[in-house]
Amino acid sequence: MKILLVNPNLTQAVTDAVLAAARVRAAPGTELLAVTGSFGPAVIGSRAENALAQHGVLDLVARHAPGCDAVVLGVSLDTALWACRELLDIPVVGMTEAGLLCGATVATRIGLLTNGARMGPLYRELVQSYGLGERLAGVETLALTPQQMVGSPQDIQAAQDAVVAAAHTLIERDGAEAVLLAGAAMASMAEALQPQLPVPLLDGVGCAVALAQAMAGLRLPRARVGSVSPTGGRSVQGVSPALAQLFGRTA
Amino acid sequence: MKILLVNPNLTQAVTDAVLAAARVRAAPGTELLAVTGSFGPAVIGSRAENALAQHGVLDLVARHAPGCDAVVLGVSLDTALWACRELLDIPVVGMTEAGLLCGATVATRIGLLTNGARMGPLYRELVQSYGLGERLAGVETLALTPQQMVGSPQDIQAAQDAVVAAAHTLIERDGAEAVLLAGAAMASMAEALQPQLPVPLLDGVGCAVALAQAMAGLRLPRARVGSVSPTGGRSVQGVSPALAQLFGRTA
Amino acid sequence: MKILLVNPNLTQAVTDAVLAAARVRAAPGTELLAVTGSFGPAVIGSRAENALAQHGVLDLVARHAPGCDAVVLGVSLDTALWACRELLDIPVVGMTEAGLLCGATVATRIGLLTNGARMGPLYRELVQSYGLGERLAGVETLALTPQQMVGSPQDIQAAQDAVVAAAHTLIERDGAEAVLLAGAAMASMAEALQPQLPVPLLDGVGCAVALAQAMAGLRLPRARVGSVSPTGGRSVQGVSPALAQLFGRTA
Amino acid sequence: MKILLVNPNLTQAVTDAVLAAARVRAAPGTELLAVTGSFGPAVIGSRAENALAQHGVLDLVARHAPGCDAVVLGVSLDTALWACRELLDIPVVGMTEAGLLCGATVATRIGLLTNGARMGPLYRELVQSYGLGERLAGVETLALTPQQMVGSPQDIQAAQDAVVAAAHTLIERDGAEAVLLAGAAMASMAEALQPQLPVPLLDGVGCAVALAQAMAGLRLPRARVGSVSPTGGRSVQGVSPALAQLFGRTA
Amino acid sequence: MKILLVNPNLTQAVTDAVLAAARVRAAPGTELLAVTGSFGPAVIGSRAENALAQHGVLDLVARHAPGCDAVVLGVSLDTALWACRELLDIPVVGMTEAGLLCGATVATRIGLLTNGARMGPLYRELVQSYGLGERLAGVETLALTPQQMVGSPQDIQAAQDAVVAAAHTLIERDGAEAVLLAGAAMASMAEALQPQLPVPLLDGVGCAVALAQAMAGLRLPRARVGSVSPTGGRSVQGVSPALAQLFGRTA
Amino acid sequence: MKILLVNPNLTQAVTDAVLAAARVRAAPGTELLAVTGSFGPAVIGSRAENALAQHGVLDLVARHAPGCDAVVLGVSLDTALWACRELLDIPVVGMTEAGLLCGATVATRIGLLTNGARMGPLYRELVQSYGLGERLAGVETLALTPQQMVGSPQDIQAAQDAVVAAAHTLIERDGAEAVLLAGAAMASMAEALQPQLPVPLLDGVGCAVALAQAMAGLRLPRARVGSVSPTGGRSVQGVSPALAQLFGRTA
Repeated sequence: MKILLVNPNLTQAVTDAVLAAARVRAAPGTELLAVTGSFGPAVIGSRAENALAQHGVLDLVARHAPGCDAVVLGVSLDTALWACRELLDIPVVGMTEAGLLCGATVATRIGLLTNGARMGPLYRELVQSYGLGERLAGVETLALTPQQMVGSPQDIQAAQDAVVAAAHTLIERDGAEAVLLAGAAMASMAEALQPQLPVPLLDGVGCAVALAQAMAGLRLPRARVGSVSPTGGRSVQGVSPALAQLFGRTA
Repeated sequence: MKILLVNPNLTQAVTDAVLAAARVRAAPGTELLAVTGSFGPAVIGSRAENALAQHGVLDLVARHAPGCDAVVLGVSLDTALWACRELLDIPVVGMTEAGLLCGATVATRIGLLTNGARMGPLYRELVQSYGLGERLAGVETLALTPQQMVGSPQDIQAAQDAVVAAAHTLIERDGAEAVLLAGAAMASMAEALQPQLPVPLLDGVGCAVALAQAMAGLRLPRARVGSVSPTGGRSVQGVSPALAQLFGRTA
Repeated sequence: MKILLVNPNLTQAVTDAVLAAARVRAAPGTELLAVTGSFGPAVIGSRAENALAQHGVLDLVARHAPGCDAVVLGVSLDTALWACRELLDIPVVGMTEAGLLCGATVATRIGLLTNGARMGPLYRELVQSYGLGERLAGVETLALTPQQMVGSPQDIQAAQDAVVAAAHTLIERDGAEAVLLAGAAMASMAEALQPQLPVPLLDGVGCAVALAQAMAGLRLPRARVGSVSPTGGRSVQGVSPALAQLFGRTA
Repeated sequence: MKILLVNPNLTQAVTDAVLAAARVRAAPGTELLAVTGSFGPAVIGSRAENALAQHGVLDLVARHAPGCDAVVLGVSLDTALWACRELLDIPVVGMTEAGLLCGATVATRIGLLTNGARMGPLYRELVQSYGLGERLAGVETLALTPQQMVGSPQDIQAAQDAVVAAAHTLIERDGAEAVLLAGAAMASMAEALQPQLPVPLLDGVGCAVALAQAMAGLRLPRARVGSVSPTGGRSVQGVSPALAQLFGRTA
Repeated sequence: MKILLVNPNLTQAVTDAVLAAARVRAAPGTELLAVTGSFGPAVIGSRAENALAQHGVLDLVARHAPGCDAVVLGVSLDTALWACRELLDIPVVGMTEAGLLCGATVATRIGLLTNGARMGPLYRELVQSYGLGERLAGVETLALTPQQMVGSPQDIQAAQDAVVAAAHTLIERDGAEAVLLAGAAMASMAEALQPQLPVPLLDGVGCAVALAQAMAGLRLPRARVGSVSPTGGRSVQGVSPALAQLFGRTA
Repeated sequence: MKILLVNPNLTQAVTDAVLAAARVRAAPGTELLAVTGSFGPAVIGSRAENALAQHGVLDLVARHAPGCDAVVLGVSLDTALWACRELLDIPVVGMTEAGLLCGATVATRIGLLTNGARMGPLYRELVQSYGLGERLAGVETLALTPQQMVGSPQDIQAAQDAVVAAAHTLIERDGAEAVLLAGAAMASMAEALQPQLPVPLLDGVGCAVALAQAMAGLRLPRARVGSVSPTGGRSVQGVSPALAQLFGRTA
């Protein structure tokens, strides 16, 4: 099985982190292909960057999905998730979606922890768009700078301490029975910080790989009607040939 | 007052229809500037096309919003609405959003009528994303071809008859007390069909122009915190210079 | 255009404050007529007073709406809003409704701030009755006495400080991206306090005037069916002749 | 125990029907006092009439509640229910509220059947205002004239047949496991029609009397804080002396 | 009238407490029969114990309900409530359900207070399963040991102080207008602690007895269709003869 | 990996069907152990049977889970799901839960089809208890007798035709983009009927096996706090030694 990991950011370090996290949970026979965006935002940290990155995600899957068995969106806002499902014939799974769905089998309510106060509402809206708002215990955001997350050992320790403290807030104030670490840098802390916390820490990439493998195994057919069925034969212009071709193919 | 009308489609006829509808409701002193997308989908008729068109909307507002007092999104999925609010310093109003908000002052529940069975779920999700699901009486879709909507007088008559019949279904089966015609071609029928229906027919473009004028008059300041505040100084690449500059400006 | 401002309270100073706030946002050609209740509660500060004031609102619109183009309810519980819509042929807009609808175009979630702990649940219920509960960040109430709100400069300063502090609570604790000041006295502070707060302060009266102008411009027909259509020919007794006549007229 | 039955309509026949239904369920020692409105709508059949009738309900309880142990609102929109709870020191129960609360112990979801298409939304909103929307299977309305409901035996038979048919619709289409007959005339058919229907028929008056007796027996103290606690010492003018005194008393 | 009080726990002291609380609210002519489980959990304090106790409840009602006019579940998770309604021909009322339904007539929102942090989510889920989530102000849990609740006067005083403090939190932080004490030991404090609190304290047993009496008086027929109608003629094995017979009887 | 398949029914044929469906989706190295209840209902077809079967499920996992890596509940009401999660240290997945979670990655809304009109509300409640009500397009029930489902070829053909027709109703009337076949007999038709339907048919057993394998691979630790953490050291009596021991073990 071959899984495509899509990072629409232009930052290779994020792709590397997603790939590393995916490797931990990939089954022995699973091959991983991680790709990075070639245009759009350096990092997605706002509504507008997330809007723009949808084009980037579509472009990446148009170019790299052929030959793969499943796609994992390695971007924690699950950018263009349903659009990919409409365009592609293979299972597509989002990081945060997978964290929530897998988390739903171990916790009645899940806390979500991410970086950036302005991102909190976007995650809340994302969870609600999945119809999973009742399973969300709460959202907590930190204000870590990139340096704090990838800096000196002291910086990293301080960042980790902040993550642990915020997770405790979600557990004690909001009743979270699991905590989803959203965002590539934060998610990569899950394994290291698990021993310090009394509930499961969910890493979206790992959950997405596990769920993508499961869905590929189920071999469900595509819907031929409804809002995620193939459109077939659509005309788009001014985009990459691969993307234009993907839109234009007839089912 | 100068209002920018944004059509991210590549179809000039849609822009013309939006402009014509806008003129009917614009105040005497209001100037209208209607622009058409230069890349992306010819027509938005699927999730993937709507995802791609977000880039197109951002590109259009980056190039044309300077000098305007408000923006109206002339695309009935309100594509990239909150992203535009984050990037721009002037009011931005979506067609369908405006139809719902204005309609909320005349009807307890609103029916939404559009073309294309696969589009029904997208509108339902859009209304829910606004937190307005309780005000939605129902969604009804037609299966009109472009020819039927802009064809011979008989074709147009048949299309109008279908719209009237579907509106009656929303009124009688679902209890709609107003009906929002979503989609540029359908919205342009509102004025002609109103006499045949016992509840207000809402044309999103007209509502959006009225609401944009109202919001511009209120002169509310922008938020300096929260998920729609200016980001300032963001790096994006591989996009038009105007869009890169809009992302990159410091607040 | 002529807009009727309805204050069902018996307190002329409240009517004056509503009129002053309305003047700020009225278009150049808009005439304003502000009227005060002649029976009922001196001030609405409880469920029972609000129930009683519904008769007062109906009586005022029966006597003063003829000749007007729109009605603004200058009472922050939007007392008898839908009843007025049923009785009258012109647009009717409530203060708090308008603050929420206009605020919905600038903020994903709105905080509501008012005076009187016992009033908090009424505003929460009002927002939910509009189907807008998901857009409500939270409700915060103060315990200011009338003297504190209209007293010595020191009193007023203390009241304003309390309002600013409570608004900050809504922004920081609840994630409000705009704050609606509910209640005539509090709403009149919006302009003065805006510089001290990082999100838009919404004054319901200004929003209602702007929205009433917009709706009057749309010239939507009345529904002929449904729960807000004209009843026609209803018999009521023991009320003012104008109100009895309004109920009794045939559509 | 003495229970006040309040009919704010001006129609004595409605009061008589409410009293008759109440007698069936009153405990042996329960005394019933039924009173009729002296001003306001002849019959409540619209939003505006219901708004106006709130004054009427308050006036009736101000004049007649002293000396009673509980109040039952014999008006199926439960007009001014929470206002009465705020003003009075004894339990107050609404017809439709009681039908829903008692019905909730025998049926997972309840269908509501009433007369008048325009009234359907009001009942739906009422149920939602109680936070009971999830327990509502559906609402069905009939279009019976007064003559049909109280006319010749053939008329009555036709009306009953229509009620039975509509109840079957609620049961079969909507999954109602009990049916609440709302409206005085319709509720009075409950006993006669029960044998023709496979689920419990709920008569709001009977449920309200049973619940009022139960609440009076619990002897709960009044809240001293919150939105239903006594206000004390409020000034209202231009109303009956009894009502002005009720508002003005100090707790 | 004879009411069966069911305690599926194996702890006679709990049964005694339930019986004592029931006696306070039972009408003069009401006979009470309190029974204790013979297998299953000593005390229900977890999801698994509650799951297991469903068998216990069914066994008790199979053996003791014949000859009774109503059943009250004296277990605050209302264990097997709808299963009993399906099996029995008499009204069945749960403690917590009754506390919520009766409380709904005196408070717009109810706070729930119980013992054991891990039990909080179960009560929240229970309230939501009744469709009453909007009426729940909040849930607060204590961490009292059995000794603290039934120990020395100082222990009891400390426990009561903790209950009062937690109730104040529900009132002040969450806006509770009534507080439901869930759990047999805690509920028995209601009468003693009422004077220290400014809102009604609801004791589920008392409410359940009052509501059971009310429902028995209404003499509603059983549904013959739907999910709570009699099944008739079902085969179960390996249970008590009384329970097997109850399942096996034909309607 | 070894997965325990739990059928609390007494019907071996159901266990066999579950095991057969599981085999189709089990990974090459996965061992399956299917067990059947030894007491309780022959078939679960009512609320009371489902309540009773909770004891049966707990008994089966107490006796058979030791040595297994995951548990799949092969009963479509997911009986005692969260109780098992509380008691066991390995992943536990329910059939219907898994069908919904896996289905959520291919369809925006899922239709649920089962046998028995009285079972419809139970599945609706189950989906809502998972907080997934917004993802449920609708529930449709059939009235097939056991003979029709396992009888002559003509019987089976008629049953399959009924299933296909009901699935089409869910797709066309309710907008289902996938259909979950609930109930062991019906689920076993999924593979055969898929070619006749334009959306994915979900078989809960297959989904549960896939998801159980995924969760076992994630190796999440158990929560040490919250409502699904181990209770440790609980006393239960009158149950099987294995179950008493499972409750009594200290974490």
